Amino acid sequence: MIRKGDFVLLVSEEGKEFLLQVDENKIFGTHKGNINLQELIGKEYGITVYTTKGSFAVVRPTIYDFIKRIKRQTQIIYPKDIGYIILRLGITSGSRVIECGTGSGSLATAFAFAVKPFGRVYSYEKREEFQKLAMENLKRAGVEDYVVLKLKDAREGFDEKEVDAIFIDVKVPEELVDSVWESLKPGAPVGFLLPTANQASSLLRKLNEGGFVVTELVEILLRRYKTNPERLRPDDLMNAHTGYLLFARKKEK
Amino acid sequence: MIRKGDFVLLVSEEGKEFLLQVDENKIFGTHKGNINLQELIGKEYGITVYTTKGSFAVVRPTIYDFIKRIKRQTQIIYPKDIGYIILRLGITSGSRVIECGTGSGSLATAFAFAVKPFGRVYSYEKREEFQKLAMENLKRAGVEDYVVLKLKDAREGFDEKEVDAIFIDVKVPEELVDSVWESLKPGAPVGFLLPTANQASSLLRKLNEGGFVVTELVEILLRRYKTNPERLRPDDLMNAHTGYLLFARKKEK
Amino acid sequence: MIRKGDFVLLVSEEGKEFLLQVDENKIFGTHKGNINLQELIGKEYGITVYTTKGSFAVVRPTIYDFIKRIKRQTQIIYPKDIGYIILRLGITSGSRVIECGTGSGSLATAFAFAVKPFGRVYSYEKREEFQKLAMENLKRAGVEDYVVLKLKDAREGFDEKEVDAIFIDVKVPEELVDSVWESLKPGAPVGFLLPTANQASSLLRKLNEGGFVVTELVEILLRRYKTNPERLRPDDLMNAHTGYLLFARKKEK
Amino acid sequence: MIRKGDFVLLVSEEGKEFLLQVDENKIFGTHKGNINLQELIGKEYGITVYTTKGSFAVVRPTIYDFIKRIKRQTQIIYPKDIGYIILRLGITSGSRVIECGTGSGSLATAFAFAVKPFGRVYSYEKREEFQKLAMENLKRAGVEDYVVLKLKDAREGFDEKEVDAIFIDVKVPEELVDSVWESLKPGAPVGFLLPTANQASSLLRKLNEGGFVVTELVEILLRRYKTNPERLRPDDLMNAHTGYLLFARKKEK
Repeated sequence: MIRKGDFVLLVSEEGKEFLLQVDENKIFGTHKGNINLQELIGKEYGITVYTTKGSFAVVRPTIYDFIKRIKRQTQIIYPKDIGYIILRLGITSGSRVIECGTGSGSLATAFAFAVKPFGRVYSYEKREEFQKLAMENLKRAGVEDYVVLKLKDAREGFDEKEVDAIFIDVKVPEELVDSVWESLKPGAPVGFLLPTANQASSLLRKLNEGGFVVTELVEILLRRYKTNPERLRPDDLMNAHTGYLLFARKKEK
Repeated sequence: MIRKGDFVLLVSEEGKEFLLQVDENKIFGTHKGNINLQELIGKEYGITVYTTKGSFAVVRPTIYDFIKRIKRQTQIIYPKDIGYIILRLGITSGSRVIECGTGSGSLATAFAFAVKPFGRVYSYEKREEFQKLAMENLKRAGVEDYVVLKLKDAREGFDEKEVDAIFIDVKVPEELVDSVWESLKPGAPVGFLLPTANQASSLLRKLNEGGFVVTELVEILLRRYKTNPERLRPDDLMNAHTGYLLFARKKEK
Repeated sequence: MIRKGDFVLLVSEEGKEFLLQVDENKIFGTHKGNINLQELIGKEYGITVYTTKGSFAVVRPTIYDFIKRIKRQTQIIYPKDIGYIILRLGITSGSRVIECGTGSGSLATAFAFAVKPFGRVYSYEKREEFQKLAMENLKRAGVEDYVVLKLKDAREGFDEKEVDAIFIDVKVPEELVDSVWESLKPGAPVGFLLPTANQASSLLRKLNEGGFVVTELVEILLRRYKTNPERLRPDDLMNAHTGYLLFARKKEK
Repeated sequence: MIRKGDFVLLVSEEGKEFLLQVDENKIFGTHKGNINLQELIGKEYGITVYTTKGSFAVVRPTIYDFIKRIKRQTQIIYPKDIGYIILRLGITSGSRVIECGTGSGSLATAFAFAVKPFGRVYSYEKREEFQKLAMENLKRAGVEDYVVLKLKDAREGFDEKEVDAIFIDVKVPEELVDSVWESLKPGAPVGFLLPTANQASSLLRKLNEGGFVVTELVEILLRRYKTNPERLRPDDLMNAHTGYLLFARKKEK
């Protein structure tokens, strides 16, 4: 049942989506007419609401919807990359995971969703304003209990030791290689997001010397299609680059 | 600690990986010399073992490693797709999920890993020989407790109702649209893997009439790079196609 | 030497390009200050001109530059596709080639450049306004002498017979398969640009029945990189789709 | 008319292609039965020949067919790249072009086809054995008259000056930047094929200092589709990387 304060995803007949928080006296204006969100209170997910010119399915947002529509001040990590990262790092319910930096919190949100209810995500960030935004985004997605936000320069080391996995998304990742080694369980995986090829080269050199064996360097491309069954074709434009993903395993030094 | 019967991933200095089950009197021969797996018993993950010509890091396999090296008789779903599917369907610890067909069990393995410990995966398959192989693969990955394998033609309907998400990977997915609608929670997501553009067109038509709103049609491409820091470049060959991924939401009929 | 009426390509230090026609009393305003184009008259290609805030190399435009900056009222065919089309159809100096439809003339411009000085391009178009635009674009690129523009519905057949190659870019290409067969030399190649997968399926069926053997169906993707040597990385966005390219050979019916 | 010594392209009903030289007493064995090539002498291109189990269209090879089936001892440049290179460098009938190194001659073959009958390609190579192979390939394609093969280390400079365009495909392209500058017309374009990102970075630095303005760094991907109209889908595998293409213009030093 939909309650006051819940988030709903409105999906138009054409597949256009809107993520909204239900509240009293709240009207959502669309190109197809207005929707009174107050009237959703007490209804079930899955219903259809009608406006003057169309209709919208009212569905429960998934973690994907929260991430895709996250409030951002930074470049975020995209679902195409996040899904692969979680699988590659073997993150599951109960895992203890470090990420750095927090940024707008998109990866922390997804990691929290993967480790709940018994695991924890320790998310490091140097800039306080990002941390606040990340907390807001975690709360929207309802996963704030599974994340510990830390305001700290990770070059000094992470507080947690023997963690199951680490993911690093910072400007100079080489600087954190020693911190990563100190905090990972023996043999455990670490991942990095690297916007440039130069960063990939620099980090590869550092990892090879720093007690890691590199297992994969990849990029993931997502190509979306128009959904007209009589005119099936890719979208005209796509995101061509978010970053290279590098994965390694801690080994004996 | 590594025990008899455990799986280990051996990673060479060049990043070459081998997934092996530890046992007594078992020798693993590599191009760099032999490894006596029996000697790993009682050791810790993360150690390095030395052969006559090189060394290998001995690490704990993640779910990714089990999926990538799954025993297969069928075309499997790849990690690049699986990670996105789990995120897109909002599968998390505690979710109740249907998949059809089981095939070699790669998706069931990954879904089990995402829903454990309290959720369940109900995996449908018509051919008994695939079911046996899938069970073997689930056991290797240690997630057999979270999957219920069902030998049944899904056109007659799924036994479970009000499930959180469904994923379909069969030859004629249009035939299952009604079964999917009957078993999904209102507003809940369904995904499909479609090898051909013709299947995508046919299914889009059927979904639009059958009580669904389509939210996305995508393909995901993974491009792997060579990891020599002085000669950074993509691999020469890549998988160019596994299938189109279609996602929809159940709405009121 | 640069003369009045000539086109020049101005290239900034950052690689930003502007295609301009040199004329008296013509000032080109850039974000780096003004350039008096009149002063270029009598100078050589390759010089550098200085503005208050930067400098521009003044180079002779190639056919690529004219095509990339063509005046358009239609979707144009892109250089990534054009280069491959010319090679695939074996178009060379002296070739007699048909194309349909003319559109804004980007392909006609490139074909003209490939067949000159002794070959000819016969370019068919139904809408007079496009033909006028195409002629303007051909004249800008200086290749109008090698193209015969025809205002005609190609379903009635092409006037030329025994041509070396044909390229078709129209909405319903199946309708032109017979016209193509009648005008091609035995064994000669034909190419098609097809925006949708449905068109590709329909055309494949028709070609197989209509006296052709299909040799290739491809799509070509061009991914541009930022050129900062210390931060090498792909552009954020790319054109994800222009169309599928289908190539076939005429055979005996 | 097909004569003794001519090349023919045999295309099966499924689109499988074979490039063959017609000769007396020459039998070509296929999985569908034998073809007596001698019987093609005096016939026309475009005919169909029948074997015991199928048929083949006999068509005239285009330049694409010669390049795709070139005899190689080296990594060749692919048609997807060649078409774009020719357009980007503005190569046309009458152009004077330098390329280095010759390798197996695939690019020289294509350039020759683009500059004929009045232009010339000057192709530099250090290793004599490649030059011999390249000449053989040029002769097969019938374009040897338009290419001058030079056995010389290009670091000492190219013999020709004021050429219209240059293309470089060697291991250490930075070493040739001065030679390129000395031989190009003012403002004229140069292109490079660069297998690694490190080479791209190094060359970008050198070009920026060496009298060039960089206009583009790209990679081109070709994705082939299966041509069954009822099961339209990409091929399973594709070439994921041949090289980065870098284009620049000579400017005043």
